[in-house]
Amino acid sequence: MASPMFEKIALVGIGLIGSSLARVIRREGLAKHIAIATRSASTLKRAEELGLGDSYTTEAKEAVRDADLVIVSVPVGSSGEVAAEIAPALKKGAILTDVGSTKASVIAQMQPHVPEGVHFIPGHPLAGTEKSGPDAGFADLFENRWCIFTPLPGTDPAALETLSEFWRRCGSNIDTMDPQHHDMTLAIVSHLPHIIAYNIVGTADDLEAVTKSEVIKYSASGFRDFTRLAASDPTMWRDVCLHNKDAILEMLARFSEDLASLQRAIRWGDGEKLFDLFTRTRAIRRSIIEAGQDIDVPDFGRQAVEHPAAKS
Amino acid sequence: MASPMFEKIALVGIGLIGSSLARVIRREGLAKHIAIATRSASTLKRAEELGLGDSYTTEAKEAVRDADLVIVSVPVGSSGEVAAEIAPALKKGAILTDVGSTKASVIAQMQPHVPEGVHFIPGHPLAGTEKSGPDAGFADLFENRWCIFTPLPGTDPAALETLSEFWRRCGSNIDTMDPQHHDMTLAIVSHLPHIIAYNIVGTADDLEAVTKSEVIKYSASGFRDFTRLAASDPTMWRDVCLHNKDAILEMLARFSEDLASLQRAIRWGDGEKLFDLFTRTRAIRRSIIEAGQDIDVPDFGRQAVEHPAAKS
Repeated sequence: MASPMFEKIALVGIGLIGSSLARVIRREGLAKHIAIATRSASTLKRAEELGLGDSYTTEAKEAVRDADLVIVSVPVGSSGEVAAEIAPALKKGAILTDVGSTKASVIAQMQPHVPEGVHFIPGHPLAGTEKSGPDAGFADLFENRWCIFTPLPGTDPAALETLSEFWRRCGSNIDTMDPQHHDMTLAIVSHLPHIIAYNIVGTADDLEAVTKSEVIKYSASGFRDFTRLAASDPTMWRDVCLHNKDAILEMLARFSEDLASLQRAIRWGDGEKLFDLFTRTRAIRRSIIEAGQDIDVPDFGRQAVEHPAAKS
Repeated sequence: MASPMFEKIALVGIGLIGSSLARVIRREGLAKHIAIATRSASTLKRAEELGLGDSYTTEAKEAVRDADLVIVSVPVGSSGEVAAEIAPALKKGAILTDVGSTKASVIAQMQPHVPEGVHFIPGHPLAGTEKSGPDAGFADLFENRWCIFTPLPGTDPAALETLSEFWRRCGSNIDTMDPQHHDMTLAIVSHLPHIIAYNIVGTADDLEAVTKSEVIKYSASGFRDFTRLAASDPTMWRDVCLHNKDAILEMLARFSEDLASLQRAIRWGDGEKLFDLFTRTRAIRRSIIEAGQDIDVPDFGRQAVEHPAAKS
């Protein structure tokens, strides 16, 4: 095993992302000491039962004391509060980062609290599943996924390189961009898809003509795909909606405009327009598979997972 | 092997559904002779290379001659044309069925052509993947999926039972309902999800602020889920949109109304409303998993397929 990169890493928040970090840090031997903090006593107890760290506390400021790397993995709406709490306890020279899905808001919330001499580097690993909590994490979560940094002007290049190396050792590929561009990009690749998924599942839930049991029974015809994203953590996604409002509203406006146009094509029987769109979208799927960002197995490989014998 | 249910089955159309039927009919020994017809010479050649049937023709009326069971698996917009072509060649006592995703329109198109003494029973197996063509089919496609019949008044109970038994031997569970209810139900569980997926992928494809390469690169954050449905066969889905117009427009109106309300909640920072919706939708996912209609593996089991070692 390589020598640990850090003496002590503090994980503030131990949900899907925090607990996956704990597991990969342990597996790769990236720290001598993993300190875990979460406000919830029951979550903390579960993390301890799972043996995710070396020390456990409900006080984030205790966990971050003497830590060389502090990773805040909480719903983005809590970033400011956490920063205010831990700021006085941060070690000079420490790297402070986060994993939030929105960056401009997190920077606005955390930056004012960061003491001189602490390297604050906002980050966002593009990784996750629809599950949440410390049981849901796994060491491979970041494997071959992107981790995006949105460094502030004047960021110490050595600190940025150290944090990059840490994430590479967790399995990630690194990108950097400015926070506004991050927020706009994530609005289309992540936030809008989640919001649309939540919305369509809500619409189906409200129908009186088709009973809920029928929606469930026949969901394999397409609907079930949306229910995965719509099963994501409600607190996390409420906060994303509230903290990337402008970019999300912009994307929602474009989506709705396009949908109105598609609706009109259906109403007026414009088959050519429908066929053109339905053909164009196929190409994007192919590109995603070629880029290694999804598997080229029909139905996401569900059939293979359901019937292992059918795989061959 | 059980004795064949039919002397001769004719498959008109040999795409994903038709070719899956050919494979399961062969595997289960459901017919002595499988006759395959498709208008496309190249598709027919491919079906022959794959050895999917016992006879091959580009003339549907040749294939259906003397057939005891005729299954029409073509885009729903071609149903009427096919029915007109095969009608004079249908054997008295034969069962004629289809697999179309819309039922009222298919009935309106086919029924007028059906000769006296032929049992026309409209059907719809709720099964498929985003792939199309004769190479995409597989014998397990209908396993544990629903097949819905929308029998017309006066349908011969014996013919209906024979067809039901056929689909059960293909692995399906049987349901019956009236065509209007089928079309409304499918509009929400299948048609709306596909249309929304096509639309969001189109919106992303049009963005100038975020480059297409970024959309592809970061698609694992949610977007890629939609690209699967949006890679479905364009001809099939154009026809579905044109032939289930009223139910689809009704569902689109509800969806858009709900989305406008969600958009308003985001604009005005109504976190409680967002949290309530995002919590409610989780329950539907759980019900779908409990009903055995999706697998309870994070991320549809993609991680497991990508990294078989991570499965344990």
